[in-house]
Amino acid sequence: MSKEGNTKISRRGLLGATAGGAALLGGGGIAARNAFLAAATGTAATAAAATSASAQSGTITAPHIGPGQLDDYYGFWSSGQTGEARILGIPSMRELMRIPVFNRCSATGWGQTNESIRIHQRTMTEKTKNYLAANGKKIHDNGDLHHVHMSYTDGRYDGQYLFMQDKANSRIARIRCDVMKCDAILEVPNAKAMHGMRPRKVPSSNYIFANGEDEAPLVNDGTTMDDVSTYVNLFTAVDSEKMEVAWQIIVSGNLDNTDADYEGKWAFSTSYNSEMGMTQPEMTAAEMDHVVVFNIAEIEAAVERGEYQELNGCKVLDGRKENAAARLTRYIPIPNNPHGCNMAPDKIHLCIGGKLSPTVSVIDVRKLDAIFADEAEPETAVVAQPEVGLGPLHTAFDGEGNAFTSLFLDSQVVKWNIEAAVRAHNGEQVDPIISKVDVHYQPGHLKTTLGETLDADGKWLVCLSKFSKDRFLNVGPLKPENDQLIDISTDQMVVVHDGPNFAEPHDAIAVPASLMTPIIKSVWDRNDPMWAETRTQAEADGIDLDGWQDSVIRDSADPTKVRVYMSSQAPTFALDQFEVNEGDEVTVIITNLDDIDDLTHGFTIGDHGVAMEIAPQATSSVTFVAAKPGVYWYYCQWFCHALHMEMRGRMMVRPKAV
Amino acid sequence: MSKEGNTKISRRGLLGATAGGAALLGGGGIAARNAFLAAATGTAATAAAATSASAQSGTITAPHIGPGQLDDYYGFWSSGQTGEARILGIPSMRELMRIPVFNRCSATGWGQTNESIRIHQRTMTEKTKNYLAANGKKIHDNGDLHHVHMSYTDGRYDGQYLFMQDKANSRIARIRCDVMKCDAILEVPNAKAMHGMRPRKVPSSNYIFANGEDEAPLVNDGTTMDDVSTYVNLFTAVDSEKMEVAWQIIVSGNLDNTDADYEGKWAFSTSYNSEMGMTQPEMTAAEMDHVVVFNIAEIEAAVERGEYQELNGCKVLDGRKENAAARLTRYIPIPNNPHGCNMAPDKIHLCIGGKLSPTVSVIDVRKLDAIFADEAEPETAVVAQPEVGLGPLHTAFDGEGNAFTSLFLDSQVVKWNIEAAVRAHNGEQVDPIISKVDVHYQPGHLKTTLGETLDADGKWLVCLSKFSKDRFLNVGPLKPENDQLIDISTDQMVVVHDGPNFAEPHDAIAVPASLMTPIIKSVWDRNDPMWAETRTQAEADGIDLDGWQDSVIRDSADPTKVRVYMSSQAPTFALDQFEVNEGDEVTVIITNLDDIDDLTHGFTIGDHGVAMEIAPQATSSVTFVAAKPGVYWYYCQWFCHALHMEMRGRMMVRPKAV
Repeated sequence: MSKEGNTKISRRGLLGATAGGAALLGGGGIAARNAFLAAATGTAATAAAATSASAQSGTITAPHIGPGQLDDYYGFWSSGQTGEARILGIPSMRELMRIPVFNRCSATGWGQTNESIRIHQRTMTEKTKNYLAANGKKIHDNGDLHHVHMSYTDGRYDGQYLFMQDKANSRIARIRCDVMKCDAILEVPNAKAMHGMRPRKVPSSNYIFANGEDEAPLVNDGTTMDDVSTYVNLFTAVDSEKMEVAWQIIVSGNLDNTDADYEGKWAFSTSYNSEMGMTQPEMTAAEMDHVVVFNIAEIEAAVERGEYQELNGCKVLDGRKENAAARLTRYIPIPNNPHGCNMAPDKIHLCIGGKLSPTVSVIDVRKLDAIFADEAEPETAVVAQPEVGLGPLHTAFDGEGNAFTSLFLDSQVVKWNIEAAVRAHNGEQVDPIISKVDVHYQPGHLKTTLGETLDADGKWLVCLSKFSKDRFLNVGPLKPENDQLIDISTDQMVVVHDGPNFAEPHDAIAVPASLMTPIIKSVWDRNDPMWAETRTQAEADGIDLDGWQDSVIRDSADPTKVRVYMSSQAPTFALDQFEVNEGDEVTVIITNLDDIDDLTHGFTIGDHGVAMEIAPQATSSVTFVAAKPGVYWYYCQWFCHALHMEMRGRMMVRPKAV
Repeated sequence: MSKEGNTKISRRGLLGATAGGAALLGGGGIAARNAFLAAATGTAATAAAATSASAQSGTITAPHIGPGQLDDYYGFWSSGQTGEARILGIPSMRELMRIPVFNRCSATGWGQTNESIRIHQRTMTEKTKNYLAANGKKIHDNGDLHHVHMSYTDGRYDGQYLFMQDKANSRIARIRCDVMKCDAILEVPNAKAMHGMRPRKVPSSNYIFANGEDEAPLVNDGTTMDDVSTYVNLFTAVDSEKMEVAWQIIVSGNLDNTDADYEGKWAFSTSYNSEMGMTQPEMTAAEMDHVVVFNIAEIEAAVERGEYQELNGCKVLDGRKENAAARLTRYIPIPNNPHGCNMAPDKIHLCIGGKLSPTVSVIDVRKLDAIFADEAEPETAVVAQPEVGLGPLHTAFDGEGNAFTSLFLDSQVVKWNIEAAVRAHNGEQVDPIISKVDVHYQPGHLKTTLGETLDADGKWLVCLSKFSKDRFLNVGPLKPENDQLIDISTDQMVVVHDGPNFAEPHDAIAVPASLMTPIIKSVWDRNDPMWAETRTQAEADGIDLDGWQDSVIRDSADPTKVRVYMSSQAPTFALDQFEVNEGDEVTVIITNLDDIDDLTHGFTIGDHGVAMEIAPQATSSVTFVAAKPGVYWYYCQWFCHALHMEMRGRMMVRPKAV
């Protein structure tokens, strides 16, 4: 874009204001409004430890989780470009764990252990492997993990899996909730920039729906780059059990956020660039964009009938506007640049955030059958369009018919009533707006406890504010974002906690502790599939991976390959030394024989950049080339015992004969 | 070690108990003791927002930092094997920022940007470069960052730098406090496993003292691996301004923790393996180990006189016991396996944690001159040795003559009076123990606010407990550690907050907000040295790095190298497309022209594993081989604007002519 183009954009008034400028605007009058809100009576924050606190801005209700007291909810958080998933406790907002997924982790060895590299490479395309090889890498260095969602059964969380996407490198990943580790990564072919992502809710999450945000030629090999009319976008359904692409469907326009209904019939995606523009002015040119509705039964039937092309191993259908006769999709017009896409637990209303329009468009899913049957125009599905404020992005629900929408430009959350909005749309004199609360600053996603399920309980709202500015001690040019906890148990929303969070806590869900605690283990099963390939190799080497291991085995076929099997038991490794030759490819396989909760061991080799975690009863392995002759100590880097520091041994690398 | 050896170790009674078992022991009676402690009156936690909370275990004093209220202290935290530094607020214990140092960071591109790779490689030895090249890497994947300390002037924090070490790969790093980014990494030659690390306190932190923990041949090239009598350990002084080794000194025994005095005369290091044993039984065999005292003036004079050997560019002196005549070092006997090494702000007493002995050995530094002059035996420096409990590790101070020692095996913190301990040692009937408090579980380091400076204020103690077990919702086999906040403003210590933290919050310091806030910037200076080399290249390319940039420059000497200069201004990149050829080595240089606080931009290239942060007014660059023909969108991944998602453009990679 030229300088002139940039200037033009920045003249778009409020929309063109930088976030920073808007934040400053949004900050006006906050103290006064807080004082007003503070006058409202808060409710008990949590049964165990509710307390009231006297703060400068008035009396607010703050949750206090005392030492040793447990949170009521597991919060599963995305981390945007950090590429990990996070577990936070709600309402304490403490970070309980980081789970590496698309990132590399120095502490756990994620991205370095053979077990994690296998997960990364399982579905990696040849094209990606070749690119990485040309850049001297085995896996990508980064991810952009915007959304974490849990698997559902009949519209309720079932505690089995968490699913997440990588916008940066077009991937979908899965975390097993029993051990809270990533067990599968899928590189999605054909589609670009997996962005919005949701599991199907009913009858089960057999599909994970994922939006391709970026336009590109369907066969992206450089032959048709200049003719943008050949660019397409794809919607992908992933088989959540196999972690493979079930089917893909070409759409008109790009795709942004997505959700699924409570009958298992539909999936929905917003499109902010229905123009398929290549520059920002082109992307924001049209007055109207759209929501795409996907008819799952029709798509499955079309797949069954073979009405697809096979491309890079995927079944690709055509759901573009011009192929309306196939009845795979319908396009519902929505004002310029819609963003959020949230299905209410009333099973009826889908809420679309206007972003550049100050409205939320409410779609009644009961109207969709008629639209697919061409008995009604797509726009008739919109049954309300309340003006809620500037920059409406995402909407959450309390299970009592109310909606909470984040207003990016206003730096507020607005609470409004869906049914009242429908009545107002029908001409009744009713104001659907119930209340507004200032947030700090520029909110993106917001989530209510269980609000994306039939169990929505209306207790807490977490508002993920993109900018924190002056809300925390200054930590330099790079500042944290601000995850704010809001008590929504009364009509007056009350901000009770500011939670700094490292880039970028994009999205979150809240799941009751009572559902999760029976599922989550503290000690691995010895026969866990995570190290199945390692076990196969051990068996071939005659090693019992479940017993005492202190063997160094040189590969009979390739004598430059050495496998070092070592068990660990606090505070010792089974081997206090081992020897290899300079240039050997060494694989160290450690089994942690300790079976006590919280007794994780580690394995680090000094000056070799090698480190990994071995949890209780787990097996982990790492491979490197021993290219430096000399003595190098390995040690346990996960604190285990009073003699933890003495838990070490020597790797002796014999020099090559000169 | 053989199975038999392991069994022998595990028969050492309490010492051999696994941490897990000990934790269970330590947990007994906690409720009762908490109830007792809770009966004590707590003081106001923080002037702004003190509040009392009713909790299950009785009445406790809990700090509440309400929404928008700022913390009183910056807590600078290490992260152990995570390899990053962290900033936490005290008393809220919220994590305000992560600063990547030895780890790779998906969000900021640390370890991927040219600017960060240069910092990693600046002092990298050829041996390390060759090893990494053999393993297809440019930098190490991990670090083990145990200690973070701030630079001092005259015994007080000066807010300029933070220093930290990497035990895994023998490195020292520095963070500039004005921008809170790492600006230098030093690979320390000769020494192995940088562990304990402290800046000199007086007159300034011109030296950073760093302990080598692991024994190895001085010339570690594999020629003398088997003869362990050739193994040595080294103490290193780093020039903190140049970030180069000032001098190294060979010692007897290994080195663990270190500290410096308040006169600028001494440095001290504990040794848990004075035996120089190679196995755990050998390491714990002797009844006595020692503290090494380093005489800085004598060492400097010896360097001046040229009494050193030069090895890998370092001046290496001999401070072993047998070279006592040189008066560089003295060895003070301490019971078996001492660990913590903490200098009291009374300028007199150095406290050594017993680990395997239930005592703290108190050394009076006023006795040291006589010992160096051979006018007194080394053991005369020990002026107290109170029995404080099982597994004493580290000691912190309140500035009023009291000490707080972590008891690893007892899972407690004990408060005791130093002067009373000295009097008891002299035969007076006085009990130095003031009180104990249970912590959860197995504490390692503990720190009082400003306790490592002459400004020790006795307000808060942070106890870094190694195991959390049942203190938080279960998050799987890998559990967080538990950073507990303890109110020490009265004699009865009160645990007021349990803070989960990801591996391994090994150590921390607390610095008043009032000192730091005038120093920390929100926007970079355009002429910052961080991108000096990038600026030099830009000038050679005729690019004004401070103005609008939208140029693609093919290197005249090597036409396969392409440099893409692009400025960013919310919500646009200066280039909405650029083109390169398959196989080109592409360097993208982005300058963020926005100068508003908190307006960081990012640059991610889809499906290329390329991502980096560009803070306000900063320049960042990244280099990769464009090995995949096709269209790939780049986008801003640090939220910047309502049209953030539309801030993107196309990289077109032309296929090679066939």
